[in-house]
Amino acid sequence: MTLNVLGWAAPAAKAPMAPWSFERRDPRPDDVVIDIDYCGVCHSDLHNVQNDWGRSTYPMIPGHEIIGRVSAVGSQVTKFAVGDRVGVGCMVDSCFACDPCEDGEEQYCPHCVYTYGHTDPKDGRVTYGGYSEKIVVTERFVLKAPETIDPASVAPLLCAGITTWSPLRHWNVGPGSKVAIVGLGGLGHMGLKLAKALGADVTLFSRSPGKEADARRLGADRVVISTDAGQMAAVVDTFDLIIDTVPYVHDVNPYIPTLTTDGTLVLVGYLGPLEPALDTAPMVFRRKAVAGSLIGGIRDTQEMLDFCGEHGIGADVEVIRMQDIDAAFERLKKADVKYRFVIDMATLRA
Amino acid sequence: MTLNVLGWAAPAAKAPMAPWSFERRDPRPDDVVIDIDYCGVCHSDLHNVQNDWGRSTYPMIPGHEIIGRVSAVGSQVTKFAVGDRVGVGCMVDSCFACDPCEDGEEQYCPHCVYTYGHTDPKDGRVTYGGYSEKIVVTERFVLKAPETIDPASVAPLLCAGITTWSPLRHWNVGPGSKVAIVGLGGLGHMGLKLAKALGADVTLFSRSPGKEADARRLGADRVVISTDAGQMAAVVDTFDLIIDTVPYVHDVNPYIPTLTTDGTLVLVGYLGPLEPALDTAPMVFRRKAVAGSLIGGIRDTQEMLDFCGEHGIGADVEVIRMQDIDAAFERLKKADVKYRFVIDMATLRA
Repeated sequence: MTLNVLGWAAPAAKAPMAPWSFERRDPRPDDVVIDIDYCGVCHSDLHNVQNDWGRSTYPMIPGHEIIGRVSAVGSQVTKFAVGDRVGVGCMVDSCFACDPCEDGEEQYCPHCVYTYGHTDPKDGRVTYGGYSEKIVVTERFVLKAPETIDPASVAPLLCAGITTWSPLRHWNVGPGSKVAIVGLGGLGHMGLKLAKALGADVTLFSRSPGKEADARRLGADRVVISTDAGQMAAVVDTFDLIIDTVPYVHDVNPYIPTLTTDGTLVLVGYLGPLEPALDTAPMVFRRKAVAGSLIGGIRDTQEMLDFCGEHGIGADVEVIRMQDIDAAFERLKKADVKYRFVIDMATLRA
Repeated sequence: MTLNVLGWAAPAAKAPMAPWSFERRDPRPDDVVIDIDYCGVCHSDLHNVQNDWGRSTYPMIPGHEIIGRVSAVGSQVTKFAVGDRVGVGCMVDSCFACDPCEDGEEQYCPHCVYTYGHTDPKDGRVTYGGYSEKIVVTERFVLKAPETIDPASVAPLLCAGITTWSPLRHWNVGPGSKVAIVGLGGLGHMGLKLAKALGADVTLFSRSPGKEADARRLGADRVVISTDAGQMAAVVDTFDLIIDTVPYVHDVNPYIPTLTTDGTLVLVGYLGPLEPALDTAPMVFRRKAVAGSLIGGIRDTQEMLDFCGEHGIGADVEVIRMQDIDAAFERLKKADVKYRFVIDMATLRA
């Protein structure tokens, strides 16, 4: 049996998104077949559709914030049954033999297979993402999703949620921690919610004062205007961890002095050269670090979903019809969304 | 009683070093008076004498790699007695009230007092360093030095030694660790010795093949030529810790891919902007970090001196006369020393 599936694809870098029928693989004994209910629209979907990183192949079906229900399971599947509420994030396979895989950090596996636009070495086929009816994924990369939260608001947890959760956990954030978030978008708004729920004191760095009310509602204890020298001076030597979610080149130097000794600024949104140049003096004089972090492992993703279920945490979303995806991409370019578009897959055949 | 002391000072930024008589403070009850036998010549002495960092005051008596014997102790001194072999490093006081001080990391105390060219808030006097006969230091900043090693080779441990020891310990280097050192100077040669003695697998990154024999003698298991693409490709995803000792601006990007997941490149020699710009992509895709580190705390310095005593580790030094200091500075500018100049203070009145 091969699954014929309808999705919406980017036919080429400059072309509008359009319906496209394609085949999913025959489910293997360890596979779970998922009927997709919602899929979040990540900023990286836009980058990939536009081929901003120069590695896209077409037709491309984006989407790695997937929530749905199990509609079939292979004979060896033990963790899932038909009808279960499940999610799939940015990865659908890895080697399970390397150090990162053994550490439960599959995102750092050199053979990690991304959910779309990537060649799966097991069958040589290109992967297709969540802007579609169904997906077939080995159970090792399927997550149990909370039943108690609106599934549309759970979808963005699979990328925006885990991408901020992973550094919060890796750098041991909890009660007594002081955390700052740079940027209030899909990732930033989840960073505020999750850091607050973990018990940290939470600050949002913002360039504009207009975000104060929203930031506080989402979990910030305060907003510091990063262009105000007085406000920045008042938070020197303060933060144990700064999660910088800004997805474009920007000056990180103003934030370094606000780290405490042994504090870390972790970049989760920007891939590229740090310009203006990173000044090492404040890093040497207080043993501060700049690091990067990529999504998060499957074990941590399940932990985050369970935590969100217990705490009633979902993303703030704007649900859209599949047919409105190009308009959503245009608004995303202007950061005009609070705080994540999520596609209702019930509209796919509308 | 005020101590009249002879030293060699920089009278001004461009003037030759010259003898200068000055006063040390009356020893306080917690003070130790030390007759100095040797003082190492750190690259930062040259920067300070030349006012490269724009914060020098004159006359300046440099020197923060000090080894000598106790010649007097205040009434409250409990840890030292006349005749003890002792050392003094880069710091002579701190606040003892802040988080870094409580953690034994006095070098990160905002009120840390440097051994020379710094104003001591307790008496408002400028500090003078080790290019002199005697020094007066509170016992909290005096170290017990091993009696079993040539004191000239112990002196550089007080800065070059602890500056590499501190990150090795902070990042938990031991048997099974893979460590690389960038730069083979005063700091780099100590990094090789200490990392090897801690049980790590040790690599030297070098731009020139001529250092192989020396590097292996000092503790390197191998030398990787950093300008050789093939050699660099062979060590991708290898090192848990890279200690970069280079004291001038240089491109750190080639080293980042050689870090393993969660690996850190720590800068201990260069203060300034990272140019060319640091590329964040390899940091994000494997959760790698760039950090800074400054000397080390007093507890760690004592631990390092004890460790060196047990393992018979000293610096490789070239002992010079006080009168030859300007010539030594000139050679230092050309990195023409293996691997540290140390001044014999017996020559001070010659």
